[in-house]
Amino acid sequence: MNHNNLVTPLLNDLYEYTMAYAYWKSGRHEDTSVFDLFIRENPFGGEFTIFAGLEEAVNYVRNFHLTENDIEYIRSVLPNADEEFFIWLKSADCSRIKIFSPKEGTIVFPMIPLLRVEGPLGIAQLLETTLLNLINYPSLVATNAARMKLAAGKNKGLLEFGLRRAQGPNGGLTASRYSYLGGFDATSNVLAGKTYGIPLRGTLAHAFVSTFSSLKEIPSSTITTPDGKETEFVSRVLDFRKKLNAENSHEGELAAFIAYAQAFPKSFLALVDTYDTLKSGVPNFLAVALALHSAGYVPVGVRLDSGDLAYLSKQTREQFRKVSSRFHVPFERLSIVASNNINEATLHALAQQGHEIDVFGIGTHLVTCEAQPALGGVYKLVEVNGEPRIKLSQEKAKTTIPGKKEVYRLIDQHGFPMTDLMIRIGEAPPKVGEKILCRHPFEEAKRAYIKPSDVMLLHQCVWDGKRAAEFPTLEQRRQFVLNQISSFRQDHLRYLNPTPYKVSVSESLYNFIHEIWQREMPVAELE
Amino acid sequence: MNHNNLVTPLLNDLYEYTMAYAYWKSGRHEDTSVFDLFIRENPFGGEFTIFAGLEEAVNYVRNFHLTENDIEYIRSVLPNADEEFFIWLKSADCSRIKIFSPKEGTIVFPMIPLLRVEGPLGIAQLLETTLLNLINYPSLVATNAARMKLAAGKNKGLLEFGLRRAQGPNGGLTASRYSYLGGFDATSNVLAGKTYGIPLRGTLAHAFVSTFSSLKEIPSSTITTPDGKETEFVSRVLDFRKKLNAENSHEGELAAFIAYAQAFPKSFLALVDTYDTLKSGVPNFLAVALALHSAGYVPVGVRLDSGDLAYLSKQTREQFRKVSSRFHVPFERLSIVASNNINEATLHALAQQGHEIDVFGIGTHLVTCEAQPALGGVYKLVEVNGEPRIKLSQEKAKTTIPGKKEVYRLIDQHGFPMTDLMIRIGEAPPKVGEKILCRHPFEEAKRAYIKPSDVMLLHQCVWDGKRAAEFPTLEQRRQFVLNQISSFRQDHLRYLNPTPYKVSVSESLYNFIHEIWQREMPVAELE
Repeated sequence: MNHNNLVTPLLNDLYEYTMAYAYWKSGRHEDTSVFDLFIRENPFGGEFTIFAGLEEAVNYVRNFHLTENDIEYIRSVLPNADEEFFIWLKSADCSRIKIFSPKEGTIVFPMIPLLRVEGPLGIAQLLETTLLNLINYPSLVATNAARMKLAAGKNKGLLEFGLRRAQGPNGGLTASRYSYLGGFDATSNVLAGKTYGIPLRGTLAHAFVSTFSSLKEIPSSTITTPDGKETEFVSRVLDFRKKLNAENSHEGELAAFIAYAQAFPKSFLALVDTYDTLKSGVPNFLAVALALHSAGYVPVGVRLDSGDLAYLSKQTREQFRKVSSRFHVPFERLSIVASNNINEATLHALAQQGHEIDVFGIGTHLVTCEAQPALGGVYKLVEVNGEPRIKLSQEKAKTTIPGKKEVYRLIDQHGFPMTDLMIRIGEAPPKVGEKILCRHPFEEAKRAYIKPSDVMLLHQCVWDGKRAAEFPTLEQRRQFVLNQISSFRQDHLRYLNPTPYKVSVSESLYNFIHEIWQREMPVAELE
Repeated sequence: MNHNNLVTPLLNDLYEYTMAYAYWKSGRHEDTSVFDLFIRENPFGGEFTIFAGLEEAVNYVRNFHLTENDIEYIRSVLPNADEEFFIWLKSADCSRIKIFSPKEGTIVFPMIPLLRVEGPLGIAQLLETTLLNLINYPSLVATNAARMKLAAGKNKGLLEFGLRRAQGPNGGLTASRYSYLGGFDATSNVLAGKTYGIPLRGTLAHAFVSTFSSLKEIPSSTITTPDGKETEFVSRVLDFRKKLNAENSHEGELAAFIAYAQAFPKSFLALVDTYDTLKSGVPNFLAVALALHSAGYVPVGVRLDSGDLAYLSKQTREQFRKVSSRFHVPFERLSIVASNNINEATLHALAQQGHEIDVFGIGTHLVTCEAQPALGGVYKLVEVNGEPRIKLSQEKAKTTIPGKKEVYRLIDQHGFPMTDLMIRIGEAPPKVGEKILCRHPFEEAKRAYIKPSDVMLLHQCVWDGKRAAEFPTLEQRRQFVLNQISSFRQDHLRYLNPTPYKVSVSESLYNFIHEIWQREMPVAELE
């Protein structure tokens, strides 16, 4: 199963083609160009971003090619273009394109190039929209997932449930894939499980529970024990229900739980909020769970899907404890899963109130990234034929850093990253133990000497025109994200008032930026 | 090009399969069931929703089938399930499923079934997640597009530019398709143009402009006239630039415009904000446009992509007017396109301030539906084996309307829809000119006699197990949406304090709901 049949050079804004034609027409399509793909600010009011989508981006570049059929369509859209342009377009590929980037899953920051794309102007321009599509949302949702992981806490499980609210089929797949990369533990999306090997989770919905209205709808009163014997089950359940003093629990719900346990005796997890969580759902669950246990099985737990999750989880845990001690069963640590419109803020609020939830199921707010549904990654020209290019703006944050750059992550004496330093290509790189002046790219007053205890070159060549870098598996990249998260100072990552991580430039790059800025920025004339 | 290879029964939450297995195990998978797919509230704080995604949903149902390979994967996920289940699953199709729905593009409201799905419980359950995925986002983005169309005003053009910010490749395609359905006029997404026949638009980005730094980079000083002659062009441009007193305009920008005009003399539209919109961009555009005009071409206009769009558009129009009258050219009505983070609120604000924009390009806020990035459509069981089912909730809005229902749209004497009336299947339908009692489904005090001047049955059978309804083309459905918009009272559709449209139930359905509610809802016991 491959969803990449959509990722073709036609998955593109039309203006990339009109520009390519105009470059070609003016003989500039072969000019050597450098584009930076970068973000201008971190999402969700935070101070970090998880870089994701790289493997898909490189696969796209590797396979970049327009078919006859594609060309025919472009010709119909540009009916007045010279025929020779289409000959060039037909031959267009990425064999002269080079791409440099940090590893997928790296924690990154505004202004740092996420991709540096070098090569013929006409081709590099055509890559813009597709690369942005392949990086923007994956990085956004991976960051959202990582933030939720931080909010939930290390020992909590996180399940992605967002397929029904995603932007169509592939929106759902992309969300599942990159939520997992960002630190989620499993998904409900079967196709994502099959396609990417992501662990799957799922049990039952309210529809299943409300299908049943009485115990008469249970066709069999028995269950098969782990060693293969048929044993009476329904009467055991009713017996435990009586002992639990829960004979007023909803009978249809009880029937549904029995039917579900008969189908999944090894993985019995019940949705307990269809009628009344504490008076019906949890007691019904416990009656069935005790019967399962007496038949030799280990029940899994419950899912709460409405109401005050902190309160309900604590009350549920309390019922688990009481049953544990009264019936001498190991039910104290049964799993409590919670879902229902959970977002990052809810996770923090729950943590503050105290709760007994083990696993969170998160859908809508994860996949739509409701708190900020788009990452504003951009793709800007920084050099043509060796000449720097700058995009000027009255807003400093919108100004680009001109020219071809390398980025070094400088590590402090405790092993924590302290700044990302951009230097011009060709400059002497920063050295371990040697003091270097790091400057804010735009604010003259912000500068500091830094003596790094370690130095990491952030970018590597991931596509050299012929070969793509080898990518770790999704599982390995997920682990890399978790490692990145623990390798940073937690104050950069926290929810409230996080400390900004500094992105700086060398003295030489600082001067270079400001020379070009002075030269290019028109002086206002007031009348 | 077909993106439906993703839309398979595996594009599903795992729990649909675990439930299907548990139904099968308890012998209930063949029970006759009815599910309603509906929304609980309108998006964006509005009072209406455009129903979209139907054709894709019906195509999915028509092709519903699990391959050997799919079955093998499900087996690996449910390792303890009986083998006979997989035989049933292999044979599962939608030949006994029926689907009823309003026409795609209909204006719909909360509680009204958007799909009524009837058929064997095991199969109908398996359809849930995929149908929600195929209806939720399409309806959301079509509604967003329709709202933006209303905000922009009838005579304004709307272009969808969202590919780079969408949820991956298919998120982008889905956004383009349903934005067009909702009333947008064109897209920048080439693949959407090719796949769905949506008109394409696109010209140039800042990168193109900043590639050029001087006129020396223009390889040819001539242009080919419409009748095929080479004529001097650059010197004409420079001549007009002088006459416009714009000799300090940015030379690189001027070179870029010349190059673009040479490539696209018939469709010259310039991005004018790279350096200074009013002092450089617009004068440079006008110099090139005048030269084009003198060579026999009709220039198109400009795009503004930053700054105060109301002010800049008015100033730009003023420059167009002056040049029109001074040079006797028809430049007064040249097109002014505006983009840059536009949302529905911006469109209203611009309309209030007054502006001279003809066409809006909208990306991020359209495709991400930032104001509300998910439509909370749900899929609820309302009947099993002829017995009604209700999903109870303390929140009235979350309670379902039990049983199989028909919906009639009652039209007032001015031709406007006044209420949607749900009745039980088998009840006498409302008749033109006859008084009928319409009740709020949950609030006893809200009821009214209505004498409709016309009556429309809202649902039709779109899939009968064998054949799908014939769907109009995308273009026809788009026109249907525009017609729907003008067929409703505008106070239901307006941005601020829209009048809620009433969804009501018959007396018989009202009593039916409340009988079941009384029977099923447990009475709280306070201690």
